[in-house]
Amino acid sequence: MELYGFFRSSAAFRTRIALNLKGLAFDQVPINLRANEQRRGDYLKLNPMGTVPTLIDGDIVVDQSLAIIEYLEETHPEPPLLPKTPADRARVRAIAMDIACEIHPINNLRVRRYILHDLGHDEKALETWMNHWTKLGFDGIEPMLAGDPRTGKFCHGDRPGMADICLVPGVFNARIYPSFDMTPYPAIRRVFDNCMKLEAFERALPERQSDAV
Amino acid sequence: MELYGFFRSSAAFRTRIALNLKGLAFDQVPINLRANEQRRGDYLKLNPMGTVPTLIDGDIVVDQSLAIIEYLEETHPEPPLLPKTPADRARVRAIAMDIACEIHPINNLRVRRYILHDLGHDEKALETWMNHWTKLGFDGIEPMLAGDPRTGKFCHGDRPGMADICLVPGVFNARIYPSFDMTPYPAIRRVFDNCMKLEAFERALPERQSDAV
Repeated sequence: MELYGFFRSSAAFRTRIALNLKGLAFDQVPINLRANEQRRGDYLKLNPMGTVPTLIDGDIVVDQSLAIIEYLEETHPEPPLLPKTPADRARVRAIAMDIACEIHPINNLRVRRYILHDLGHDEKALETWMNHWTKLGFDGIEPMLAGDPRTGKFCHGDRPGMADICLVPGVFNARIYPSFDMTPYPAIRRVFDNCMKLEAFERALPERQSDAV
Repeated sequence: MELYGFFRSSAAFRTRIALNLKGLAFDQVPINLRANEQRRGDYLKLNPMGTVPTLIDGDIVVDQSLAIIEYLEETHPEPPLLPKTPADRARVRAIAMDIACEIHPINNLRVRRYILHDLGHDEKALETWMNHWTKLGFDGIEPMLAGDPRTGKFCHGDRPGMADICLVPGVFNARIYPSFDMTPYPAIRRVFDNCMKLEAFERALPERQSDAV
């Protein structure tokens, strides 16, 4: 398999963790978002949305990190990244999407660029913007983790899965600005720390990738 | 089942379509986003993220529209909203997420409010913002539909599914500003028109809901 990604993309980071947890080998093709390589004609032919990551599995091309993770789950079921019952699977998918649909898209590189360059705001306003959306999201996720007995060492039980895969890059993004206060989120911090003890997460870190600068 | 939603929320709109396509009866509980009812203490207990929709199925509570749709697909498999093979399922999920993760979160009510009230921009700047993100998304989705033989009457084949469920509210949002040019998107328009011939979509329309004003 081939994964088109970018070391700093948190969506690509998610798929690297998933591939590692599944024990799947993959080659990485770097697409430099800072140099706008995702808008190059050859990449747009592969992924017309111009987003990373894109997974290539033989002649199958999949975009969108969560669609890639569901695809890996269906084609390589072991170890599972989703629990067994529909109710538990819904809980894990919802936590994953609370990050992937409510925090990440609004704080993404292209949106940050628009705030700075098109709307003409300064770095300070951008910092307030990012911290605002992260706080709204984490304020929701923290009680969902702390208040549910299904939370274990990880977001759901004692095995890492799709929610943890989204949470860890979400915490990295939250820490971009030291002004973001992680104190009110002990459950998130605990799960994060447990994830980072695992080689599958550690090996997926942005700074461990070949295109890291 | 009970669906907490808001007539104008496109995420709630998606789940109404899915429930209708599955032929499932449900009661609606209106949460007025314009009056910030989603931040009320009793609702936050149900859904700490303060988002709509939330589905209640007995003692099971699910947030996030796509997690709700996956839950309905697992608990009520017929008629299916996802195709059979992992590759085709990945295609449908990715198109759904291209809308639900790349366009909708950035153009959401709470982000629009932030642009106006916190960043101090006018309606014209907001219109440019919304059209910009919709265009970026539709520019990607159009060739994914037009250039793939798996596209039929609907996004995938001749049966409506998860991608159509996201596309239709996406087109409604695109049309908020008449300045948004739909001409470059014949495949999106054709699928939209085919969906709107179906009672399941028509009955889910914002203006058909009891809380519509």
